[in-house]
Amino acid sequence: MASNATNGTTDANAAASRFDPNFTQHVIDLMAPETKPRHRQILTSLIRHMHDFCREVELTQSEWVLGVNYINALGQAYEKNRNETWRVMDILGIESLVDEINHSLVLEDGRAPTSSTILGPFWSPETPFRELGGSVVQNMPKDGELTFFHGVIKDVDTGKGIPGAVFDMWQASTNGKYDVFDPENQTRHNLRGKFRTDENGKFWFYCLKPTEYAIDTSGPSAELLKIMGRHPYRPAHIHMMVTHPDYIGVTAQLYPKDDPYLATDTVCAVKDDLLLDFKPVQNEPNGAVLDVEYNVRMAPKKYKPDSTMLMENANQNKF
Amino acid sequence: MASNATNGTTDANAAASRFDPNFTQHVIDLMAPETKPRHRQILTSLIRHMHDFCREVELTQSEWVLGVNYINALGQAYEKNRNETWRVMDILGIESLVDEINHSLVLEDGRAPTSSTILGPFWSPETPFRELGGSVVQNMPKDGELTFFHGVIKDVDTGKGIPGAVFDMWQASTNGKYDVFDPENQTRHNLRGKFRTDENGKFWFYCLKPTEYAIDTSGPSAELLKIMGRHPYRPAHIHMMVTHPDYIGVTAQLYPKDDPYLATDTVCAVKDDLLLDFKPVQNEPNGAVLDVEYNVRMAPKKYKPDSTMLMENANQNKF
Repeated sequence: MASNATNGTTDANAAASRFDPNFTQHVIDLMAPETKPRHRQILTSLIRHMHDFCREVELTQSEWVLGVNYINALGQAYEKNRNETWRVMDILGIESLVDEINHSLVLEDGRAPTSSTILGPFWSPETPFRELGGSVVQNMPKDGELTFFHGVIKDVDTGKGIPGAVFDMWQASTNGKYDVFDPENQTRHNLRGKFRTDENGKFWFYCLKPTEYAIDTSGPSAELLKIMGRHPYRPAHIHMMVTHPDYIGVTAQLYPKDDPYLATDTVCAVKDDLLLDFKPVQNEPNGAVLDVEYNVRMAPKKYKPDSTMLMENANQNKF
Repeated sequence: MASNATNGTTDANAAASRFDPNFTQHVIDLMAPETKPRHRQILTSLIRHMHDFCREVELTQSEWVLGVNYINALGQAYEKNRNETWRVMDILGIESLVDEINHSLVLEDGRAPTSSTILGPFWSPETPFRELGGSVVQNMPKDGELTFFHGVIKDVDTGKGIPGAVFDMWQASTNGKYDVFDPENQTRHNLRGKFRTDENGKFWFYCLKPTEYAIDTSGPSAELLKIMGRHPYRPAHIHMMVTHPDYIGVTAQLYPKDDPYLATDTVCAVKDDLLLDFKPVQNEPNGAVLDVEYNVRMAPKKYKPDSTMLMENANQNKF
């Protein structure tokens, strides 16, 4: 059994036979009849999976104590702008998976709106609208590469541009920091902007080519990365939150298609349709050295009438 | 899918089809080749079960954030003698399950040694040996019921008594407190004692009839109990740790067979062969009002040559 599990297969049923077959159901049945249905559903599944996990790997008592201590260490490390539990969830792919569960939408004939990916903690509700063709670069870093970013926001059913949609974007500077965490180098709202599409659904503006950065490695989440033999880097990315009253919103991150960390993103948030192709340009009128086009596909709200966006996440700063 | 899960069945495969079928394996495959085999085994199983759990209940983002905050609250509540993470594990049956995984031993023809159950945080390595027939009651509470406790420690194969085995016992006083947490009422080593069996494997001594008590309900673990509609009581119990150099040790808790909390123990640590029948007696020479017999079955070490007991748990006070 132990050797089976080592090579990645599981054999919970075989292992379970050595143990009391009624124990897990006993714990589940301790819930009172008045337990709320959703609480019962979540706790039933959680208890089953935690018990199956323990039996499958035949967890030792020392390992279990280590796990308890680790969970305590995560909570003890908590402070404003530092959420190690959140980061561990990201490292294990949980935030990205929960995002998919809540936003995955495949239409009947295989059409799909632009993929969603995690919001992250740096979205701001105060980002200003800017004119089409404006620049979000208020403070140009020495190593910054000015980029002309443009595209069309389209209806996934008709393929037509959506006028009046909002393309809200934010990105870190070349030092890996967002404006609010870098007051020495960046003025408020640097590298943030909201753009409203024109009558054809088009938008265009200037930003920086994004650059990769490492997540904070001073806490217990870094121990998990080390155990797994993983690096702490996120691929370079530009965040976007695209909205329109008649369409299901799309929150995602866009990555240069040649970024070295796409396949090994620390927070497992890369998807195939979120890649950008930065092309060198010369003699661009506003001095851009790169050009990138990205089109967004939005689904009408009829497909998910109760859809909402979890913007309150933005108040849970974690990195 | 959601309604299936509500009534206790699971349908992870059906739910999974809506989502990227490769994502979980992607996260697992982020582990580097040099990851230690046991780390790989544990994390592979943990990632699979956590992902299946999220998909099965279609966890919402708000619920996920609530979970992250709850884990943080557990760690933030940590202090000496207060381990809320440990207690949550107990409420979910995890400590008891891990104990079973590490100690379950069923011999070929159905014979079984006495069941193991969780050690708890109150065992002491300094408990003194006492004479057979002595009393562990150094401080008799007003509502205490003196009990004559006796039995035989037997070889599970031969049924014969094991001479020189050690029956180490400890119990709370009638106020629900152990000696070290109750210096006003109890002298050191009150209600603790080690007894060495005679040439026939017999032991006998005086103790109190144990009484039920509630676990601490001032922290986040009590929120979980409340959500599940569960009470905070442990059934009354006497702890025992039985050892002999040639036998696999047995650590367990013994419960009055008529205790009202047997079926709903907060920490899920009751087993059918750990029940005590307290019988009233009159004119007992040392004033006992109750008599209880309990025999222990031990398996020779040949069945598990590498068995050890996790006494270091005793340093992880949690209640």
